[in-house]
Amino acid sequence: MQYIRATVAYDGTDFRGFQLQASGRTVQGELEAALLQLSGTETRVIGSGRTDAGVHALGQVVGFHLHWRHTLPDLQRALNAVLPPDVAIVNLSAAHEGWHPRFSAKWRHYRYTVLNSPVRSPLERRYTHLVTKPLDLDLLQAAASVFVGEHDFASFGQPMQEGETTVRAILHAAWQGIDHLLVCDVIGNAFLRGMVRALVGSMLRVGSGELELGQLAEALTARDRAAAPAPPAPACGLCLTHVEYNVLSDAN
Amino acid sequence: MQYIRATVAYDGTDFRGFQLQASGRTVQGELEAALLQLSGTETRVIGSGRTDAGVHALGQVVGFHLHWRHTLPDLQRALNAVLPPDVAIVNLSAAHEGWHPRFSAKWRHYRYTVLNSPVRSPLERRYTHLVTKPLDLDLLQAAASVFVGEHDFASFGQPMQEGETTVRAILHAAWQGIDHLLVCDVIGNAFLRGMVRALVGSMLRVGSGELELGQLAEALTARDRAAAPAPPAPACGLCLTHVEYNVLSDAN
Repeated sequence: MQYIRATVAYDGTDFRGFQLQASGRTVQGELEAALLQLSGTETRVIGSGRTDAGVHALGQVVGFHLHWRHTLPDLQRALNAVLPPDVAIVNLSAAHEGWHPRFSAKWRHYRYTVLNSPVRSPLERRYTHLVTKPLDLDLLQAAASVFVGEHDFASFGQPMQEGETTVRAILHAAWQGIDHLLVCDVIGNAFLRGMVRALVGSMLRVGSGELELGQLAEALTARDRAAAPAPPAPACGLCLTHVEYNVLSDAN
Repeated sequence: MQYIRATVAYDGTDFRGFQLQASGRTVQGELEAALLQLSGTETRVIGSGRTDAGVHALGQVVGFHLHWRHTLPDLQRALNAVLPPDVAIVNLSAAHEGWHPRFSAKWRHYRYTVLNSPVRSPLERRYTHLVTKPLDLDLLQAAASVFVGEHDFASFGQPMQEGETTVRAILHAAWQGIDHLLVCDVIGNAFLRGMVRALVGSMLRVGSGELELGQLAEALTARDRAAAPAPPAPACGLCLTHVEYNVLSDAN
């Protein structure tokens, strides 16, 4: 029995999210079905965390135990041959038993992509959120800086389990213009359910001038879901780009 | 009655191509249905040219005559509200009666995008062609230069009408690496059916070292469809990026 770590990319558009559901297509379901097909054995796949319905990934990380007689590159090719076109294994490596996809994760990197244009774009609609009101990059940047640090984010999401802490650490949150897109990178130790989309939704309202920075800071200190100053940004713009298992200063 | 010129973008994945067909979804069909819905009148849309099933566009150009009482920005908003998500009007302007979407076009710009990677990419699969064999950018570039100039391209496509000339002028054909992608821009006065994909298919075979440059040049001079040295590259990587109606030196 080998313990294997896999980096997984997916187009979230046609999934009900990462995690197995009572019904509907999920990334975990596709991965487990592919492993069953190749190995003939029911195999449980554990992810670094859930992504919601419609959220994409370039660097989701999962772990599983498998009887496999061939090499890991053989397994990667075999998995990519049986997985559907919207999921792929980017990388496979041997894991040690002390490693856990979720509990060992140090930092999660998300990227949110906004198309700020008066006109929608057919070729970018699946992977960007269209905002037709003009957005100010400096205001977006100032809004992002409000969230950096360790805060109680109860106004911006729910814990996975009731009663759990809502304190999370945001190491980095910053916007940049890349070509004609506005892109927000957020790195945190962990996120509440829906938190990245809630943060982005509020930052966009600051960027469009509809919300003052002071109101954003007040919403954060309110520590109350009802204080969220804006609806969450839609899932299509969000991508889990990377999960970091090392201390970042060591990794660089 | 106004004569209107529109720049149209579409995701070609779910279309049978630009031009109306006996059955199946087409871009022209969607545009004509939207104009009928807004104006109550059957309206014929003429494009700068066909694009095949699965080919995308950022800058297809069409013309049509319409009774419209409001402004062109109003028409653009109204069209984008009724058109499906995979088609959008990027720009509208008044056309003069001497202009024709196809016959007035001076240069057509296409871009072909290759993902050269051993692993497929779920988030790029709709708009790129995956080539798993390593490709050499210098060889691709040398292959592209074989096609620049005025040539009889009978080996690389068919004319729209039987008996028509197969001579076309290629003003520019060049590859570049953009991020992790290999991108080929081709500008020509006009193209035979399937010609850009046939040219790219052959260039890729040179880039992978399977075809000599001399063999490519021989295929061109053979002026015979049976001499095509490779199958056409798939439609998903191809995009009609721009149609130029001015002499290029004037436009710059």
